[in-house]
Amino acid sequence: MKQATIIGSGLVGSLWAIYLNKAGYKVSLFERRADMRKNTISAGKSINLAISYRGWKALDAVGVGDIIRKSAIPMYGRIAHQIDGSTSFHPYGINNQAIYSVSRGEINSRLMDIAESSGMTELFFDSQCTGLDMNKNIAYFEHNVNGIKFETKSDVIFATDGAFSTVRYQSMQRLDRFSYSQNYIEDGYKEILLPANSDGSFKLEKNALHIWPRGRFMLIALPNIDGSFTCTLFMPFDGHKFCFNNLKSKDDIITFFKEMFPDFYQLMPEIAETWTDHPISSLAIIRCFPWHNKQTVLMGDAAHATVPFYGQGMNAGFEDCTVMAQLMEQFEDDWNGCFAAYEKMRKPNGDAVQDLSLQNYLIMRDKINDPDFNLQQKVEKRIHELYPDQYLPLYSMVSFSDIEYHTALEQGKKQDEEMKKFILNHDISWSTDDRTLDDIIHNALGKEILA
Amino acid sequence: MKQATIIGSGLVGSLWAIYLNKAGYKVSLFERRADMRKNTISAGKSINLAISYRGWKALDAVGVGDIIRKSAIPMYGRIAHQIDGSTSFHPYGINNQAIYSVSRGEINSRLMDIAESSGMTELFFDSQCTGLDMNKNIAYFEHNVNGIKFETKSDVIFATDGAFSTVRYQSMQRLDRFSYSQNYIEDGYKEILLPANSDGSFKLEKNALHIWPRGRFMLIALPNIDGSFTCTLFMPFDGHKFCFNNLKSKDDIITFFKEMFPDFYQLMPEIAETWTDHPISSLAIIRCFPWHNKQTVLMGDAAHATVPFYGQGMNAGFEDCTVMAQLMEQFEDDWNGCFAAYEKMRKPNGDAVQDLSLQNYLIMRDKINDPDFNLQQKVEKRIHELYPDQYLPLYSMVSFSDIEYHTALEQGKKQDEEMKKFILNHDISWSTDDRTLDDIIHNALGKEILA
Repeated sequence: MKQATIIGSGLVGSLWAIYLNKAGYKVSLFERRADMRKNTISAGKSINLAISYRGWKALDAVGVGDIIRKSAIPMYGRIAHQIDGSTSFHPYGINNQAIYSVSRGEINSRLMDIAESSGMTELFFDSQCTGLDMNKNIAYFEHNVNGIKFETKSDVIFATDGAFSTVRYQSMQRLDRFSYSQNYIEDGYKEILLPANSDGSFKLEKNALHIWPRGRFMLIALPNIDGSFTCTLFMPFDGHKFCFNNLKSKDDIITFFKEMFPDFYQLMPEIAETWTDHPISSLAIIRCFPWHNKQTVLMGDAAHATVPFYGQGMNAGFEDCTVMAQLMEQFEDDWNGCFAAYEKMRKPNGDAVQDLSLQNYLIMRDKINDPDFNLQQKVEKRIHELYPDQYLPLYSMVSFSDIEYHTALEQGKKQDEEMKKFILNHDISWSTDDRTLDDIIHNALGKEILA
Repeated sequence: MKQATIIGSGLVGSLWAIYLNKAGYKVSLFERRADMRKNTISAGKSINLAISYRGWKALDAVGVGDIIRKSAIPMYGRIAHQIDGSTSFHPYGINNQAIYSVSRGEINSRLMDIAESSGMTELFFDSQCTGLDMNKNIAYFEHNVNGIKFETKSDVIFATDGAFSTVRYQSMQRLDRFSYSQNYIEDGYKEILLPANSDGSFKLEKNALHIWPRGRFMLIALPNIDGSFTCTLFMPFDGHKFCFNNLKSKDDIITFFKEMFPDFYQLMPEIAETWTDHPISSLAIIRCFPWHNKQTVLMGDAAHATVPFYGQGMNAGFEDCTVMAQLMEQFEDDWNGCFAAYEKMRKPNGDAVQDLSLQNYLIMRDKINDPDFNLQQKVEKRIHELYPDQYLPLYSMVSFSDIEYHTALEQGKKQDEEMKKFILNHDISWSTDDRTLDDIIHNALGKEILA
């Protein structure tokens, strides 16, 4: 029977085990942490995720989407909270399209359960990978608890061990001509838990992603099924008036929240007491190439870790599984050929999802307050509503389609320029009434936009 | 007495030991290789170097320039060799300005001698650094020959262990928020030794850097004091008609040299026999930040390794010593403050020398054959001759001044645009005679160019 090794039982590793089982592979899945299902530990730092089209597609292909859907909360758009307490709703798509808030721990646990229940995946916890022999397909491990060293040999090795992949660091990064970069952005983040009301109800509108956009920094909140919200404050570490280094005392924190997020502060006056519940974490874009060497390959964050601002990190990793599964059928047992095709196809998409993520930070924290930006969004949305098959806004391409990320990025740039001209040439403004806007769109379509 | 540890006894490490000795520091200098002075081993891959202004300045500041000058060969310009055998001379500067060809082994050995002879530097060879405790200023080593492990504690640690710095890899690269990138270019290189004539004379003009520019690839040659030339072929590894992967058999090599470098082939018909004397090596740009942590700092290639096309790698590393020595005086024993100032000042220059190096590859292998480029070079040179204090071409800023690299890069871009306009606006062409050109320059200067 064909044997596969997967290193890292995070979201991508656990899902990929299910794929490999279905393809007839026996899988040994190694994880350096303890079994998260038996412990109240968080799997990595970020505990909130949003599943969108690509994620569901990858889950549904192996029949596990519906299990995950049970604990997923649809978010139909963003609600922006201004300093004066006013809010505005910005739908993500049309016809009730949504992205879905899920708990990382919950989805990861279910994927491990499903992999294990097939009888074809064996999970090994507390197993730290210490190195690889990529010529012989051998992975070396040390057990974190008992210190025993062991190794495993298989037909193929998948590294799904995340942004700071040990496999990449211990083996690929030492190869000649391996290009690699880790670039930290100026900003860090801190998670904050906004509890449910005492009756278990939500303190904010449940079916939305909440943003408090403040230009150089922002607070966001995503709903959890227990009525709480997982909130995240993104801001520079230092060098700015508002930065983490200037939030040292409880007074600093209270003053900051009262001034910048007064409505949030009212919901959570205990903010200063809970401040140290979570650390301040850093954010990096990690790029590398190639993604494979012989029968060893990087998938998910190990290949293309991104910043979280488009909510596409997990979705891109899950899409790696979709693509790899297709190529696996095509190349049969020629893993080297399969991996060469995979990295050729996916690398431009990994780069693009990173570029898109960085762009979207600016949109979330700043542009969402810009009337020109919102006018353009409104016009784009209306064109999309009237001509849904002919015009897809960038956000829809990324979140509600499986158009390749790099195509979406390029097409998005082109559309952005076209749309700016369109608005200018037709004198569209916030005072343009809906009927006039529709007339302009109907007249123009098929001529200027999609000539 | 104050104690310093230097890891890596290459060019920068050895020179920096001399600087530290003069500042009253006792230095332990560790090197993973054997003593190059007792062995016929090469210090790293590239054996040819060009010293220009910044290098001499750093050497002269500690009185070792004249020792190195004895074995340095001035190169007053480039000689370009065309396929038809014709050549053209392109001076580097004015008034006999030159860059100087030196042997890496020779200069490195002399610097080690000088450091050692002070009685203040102790050299430890075969000593592989295995890690650092940057909180305690402890460096850990393993002896390559006897396997003994040992450690050293000092006031300050300098990592001058090159592009693939162990210190950086084992310690800094593991720190949170350490940005890092290693980007390999598409091209590799192979060294070729063109021997002297049997009477010891040079087979090519001695006092020049020879280039065979062929668009996507090039051959260069630098003189050695024994009458030989160290030549280097730069070309893509693969994916092009002319690439290393297409030079497999002796026939491939002979056909390639006969066709593309016929004059060189005549000088060295044994090229195919000597082909495997040197390996094909890769080329990378390595960027990182920060360059220090507490009392540990990166200098030279460990901080900002570049591709060799501007001949500035060693010069930039030596300039690190000049700058560090100045800051050392200013900050006295506050190493953390000194290193923070050093990295703030030098990081933009490290980035710039890398950008300049990549730019210059294009100039050397391709643009040097472009009439428009050469016309612009001619005009710039003439302006520089007529107004030497008022106008410095980019090459002169980089090679014959210590203007900061990032200033040279920015100023160079600006001048390039201005010069293109100047040539266009005044209708200057290759048919413009010298007198007319001088008139145009005299009329324009003080108005358009330096308003």
